[in-house]
Amino acid sequence: MSAVETAVSPLERLRTLLAEVADLQHAESIADWDSRVSMPPAGAQARAELSGTLSRLAHEKFTADELGGLLDELRDLDTDSVDAALVRVTRRLYERAARIPGELAGEMAEANGLAVAAWDEAKARCDFSIFLPHLERQVELKLRYIDCFPPEEGSFYDVLLEDYEEGMTTDEVTRVFARLKEVLVPLVQRKRDANGEVVLQGPFPVAAQEQAGLLVLQGFGYDPLSWRLDETPHPFAAKPGAGDIRLTTHTNEDDLTSLFSTMHEFGHGVYEFDIDHAYARTPLGGGASSAIHESQSRMWEYLVGRSAGFWRWFYPKLQPLFPEQLGSLDEMSFLRTVSAVRPGLIRGDADEVTYGLHIILRFELEQELLSGTVAPAELPELWNGRMMEYLGVAVPDDAHGVLQDMHWSIGLFGYFPTYQLGNVISVQIWERAESELGDLEQQFERGEFSPLREWLREQIYRHGSRYPPRELLRRVTGSDLDPEPYLKYLQTKFA
Amino acid sequence: MSAVETAVSPLERLRTLLAEVADLQHAESIADWDSRVSMPPAGAQARAELSGTLSRLAHEKFTADELGGLLDELRDLDTDSVDAALVRVTRRLYERAARIPGELAGEMAEANGLAVAAWDEAKARCDFSIFLPHLERQVELKLRYIDCFPPEEGSFYDVLLEDYEEGMTTDEVTRVFARLKEVLVPLVQRKRDANGEVVLQGPFPVAAQEQAGLLVLQGFGYDPLSWRLDETPHPFAAKPGAGDIRLTTHTNEDDLTSLFSTMHEFGHGVYEFDIDHAYARTPLGGGASSAIHESQSRMWEYLVGRSAGFWRWFYPKLQPLFPEQLGSLDEMSFLRTVSAVRPGLIRGDADEVTYGLHIILRFELEQELLSGTVAPAELPELWNGRMMEYLGVAVPDDAHGVLQDMHWSIGLFGYFPTYQLGNVISVQIWERAESELGDLEQQFERGEFSPLREWLREQIYRHGSRYPPRELLRRVTGSDLDPEPYLKYLQTKFA
Repeated sequence: MSAVETAVSPLERLRTLLAEVADLQHAESIADWDSRVSMPPAGAQARAELSGTLSRLAHEKFTADELGGLLDELRDLDTDSVDAALVRVTRRLYERAARIPGELAGEMAEANGLAVAAWDEAKARCDFSIFLPHLERQVELKLRYIDCFPPEEGSFYDVLLEDYEEGMTTDEVTRVFARLKEVLVPLVQRKRDANGEVVLQGPFPVAAQEQAGLLVLQGFGYDPLSWRLDETPHPFAAKPGAGDIRLTTHTNEDDLTSLFSTMHEFGHGVYEFDIDHAYARTPLGGGASSAIHESQSRMWEYLVGRSAGFWRWFYPKLQPLFPEQLGSLDEMSFLRTVSAVRPGLIRGDADEVTYGLHIILRFELEQELLSGTVAPAELPELWNGRMMEYLGVAVPDDAHGVLQDMHWSIGLFGYFPTYQLGNVISVQIWERAESELGDLEQQFERGEFSPLREWLREQIYRHGSRYPPRELLRRVTGSDLDPEPYLKYLQTKFA
Repeated sequence: MSAVETAVSPLERLRTLLAEVADLQHAESIADWDSRVSMPPAGAQARAELSGTLSRLAHEKFTADELGGLLDELRDLDTDSVDAALVRVTRRLYERAARIPGELAGEMAEANGLAVAAWDEAKARCDFSIFLPHLERQVELKLRYIDCFPPEEGSFYDVLLEDYEEGMTTDEVTRVFARLKEVLVPLVQRKRDANGEVVLQGPFPVAAQEQAGLLVLQGFGYDPLSWRLDETPHPFAAKPGAGDIRLTTHTNEDDLTSLFSTMHEFGHGVYEFDIDHAYARTPLGGGASSAIHESQSRMWEYLVGRSAGFWRWFYPKLQPLFPEQLGSLDEMSFLRTVSAVRPGLIRGDADEVTYGLHIILRFELEQELLSGTVAPAELPELWNGRMMEYLGVAVPDDAHGVLQDMHWSIGLFGYFPTYQLGNVISVQIWERAESELGDLEQQFERGEFSPLREWLREQIYRHGSRYPPRELLRRVTGSDLDPEPYLKYLQTKFA
């Protein structure tokens, strides 16, 4: 077969170009996973250069005139078809990406590699000054990025939100978060004053935690043919190609949070795994948005993973792995302990009630940092002050404060809010799932997670990015973004 | 800084383009390493597509007209300079690569991914038929590859040799191998008849073997900041970027061959590690040729790793790791055992004397396969017959026969001979090293490997591909390729 002799339709040609871009992005994903799981530290400089190149090439290919021309040719497809969705989604990304010079895309990717290594070291040594120049660089790059877009009526921060959450505005997030604050701040306050809960007594040996994590994943439907689980300082999920799902978790002997991290990353992984394979190597082959994605990680971590039904199934499996630590603790006391509202330092370990405040703090600081009212060097002090104000906790060092998350080291500004939007959405979806599937807790108690997973696959996962997030949410729940179900859920559970 | 305003010299521009190509190749190396060490099996299809894309893009970039134009502009550099070497090496590769259509390059890379997975399965299930269609495809692709070059005066096989060994011809290899056969076949025959050596009695627990491997590497100068060691079915070494060296080994409870595989891969790794960092991301940043590379793996595995001096240092460290298995075996008996001439099935486990015959068999079969006198389906029978003829061993199944090596699954035809040329060269270099460094065995006995390593770094490693292999060999040893020192060494040691 020769490409010259065969007439290639615009759609086929578009798919060929998109597959190339997807392969470059997947190569970057492999390089990134490798750098966090496998790479010897001295490889960081070369890896940063490599990521820069891959990112720049993907960007150049994606923003090439040919691709723009094909999108124009394909303007008039039947709007209900998958092909039309492909063109719509691609066009939206194309129009945004075309604003970013390849040089800047490469600089951003390269800066990430170096900044992650510096962040890692800074966190290990509790020394913010190691990370500071990289944070300054990330802020500078992000401002150059924002400048590529025309000034909006709303906030400059809308540009960043739009990257992760199509159609979301700073105003809307501010409004939703204000409503959450109204309820959460007094709820946290009341909880903080109510002492006397049981606290888990470790140590919990790492090997047994790993075993426990795998047992949970097997129950949820983890297949080693397609999945793997590793240990990293910051848990994440990656899909470097169809059928290849990588989860990581972070294990700490002091507690069992690795279990919940594993469930969280499973939610991301199962979403990606269940996307229709026909969408592979196209922009339809990922989740609908960050908040929808987070709704799934939070659903598996909290709505499933902290339910009484789940623990009636799993506690009898967990207890024998930690006979000394859990032998005398019954299942409901254990569940109370791992669900307790306990204002703390670390977002990743936060309970359902305080979690939102960790996010709101970041949402505010990011806007202040990027608008220039706060300099990167001032961040630790500001962070510590606001942690006291919102959560009443004193930050002992930057590793447990401003350095705890890797996001800013990879230029992820505007991403944090989607975690909390994900919490909000997760309860909206959960209510609908329960109304269709009956008592989920009873199913979990019998170790049956596939009815929920299948329902989610059918309703959400398989569609990938075919529908914009707002439309998907309406299709699934019949409603728009709404914080009330989430607040009702928290108040019922914790008030 | 703007690229438009700054005058970029042709050399700078060339280096920029070459760095892009190198990054794509390194990305492929990461993807390949990952697929062999980390990837869940279901990722194979997507990974094959991805490797195809990376390979095609690297090929397109490397064969672009702009690069050819720059090479023309840079024709007249001072011939002794590094820049001139860069242009010479790049031009040679460019002129070869420009003959290969990007489509074919991509098809070859894609076929490799699928064929490796099939080979893996075929080997595990002892079923050649699983691998057969992939071998047929590899032969077809290799013939299309050969057809891209003008017919040579000598053999079509010269095209393949030239890829791995600049300036080497099929005639010369045939001549050297004929000379080896003269000596090796009767030597093996005599040795086969002399029975009654001690054989190691396992099992040797995997964890202790891993510990032993790390001890050897630490002695040789392995630094975990830059190196890592993993377990794979087929050992290999990779450098996915400057400062990032990955070795793998294969551990088998029945014996201690993993130790020698580790030393072998160390030789590849240390060569790559010690290449001048100024050559990174250019075609100078790899070894001079496959045979020179193999001379180093074989040197560390055999000339160092089977020397009495090495074992006087290492045996007291190894023995306590296997008290039951080695407790009653003295050091010299152990060394005799691991050096014994014992015709066997597996090339990777072969002793110094029989090794060459494993290679000569493959050299012959490859030529027959590609010339069409043998069909891929006939290979197992032919393989088994010739193993009996040359080594007197009966092949029980294809996993221990034609399926043992992964090379053909990744289209590596023409590569095997370089292993044996490496053996020949290793002794030429060793003689020179001993004449300059004094008694190496005495140094090894004291755990001193750095004088040898430093000498090799100075003489060979740091130069990367700066000198063509023949010139490098002459610079180091004062002589051309010569089988006599190697034969003398074998005869002294084994006759």
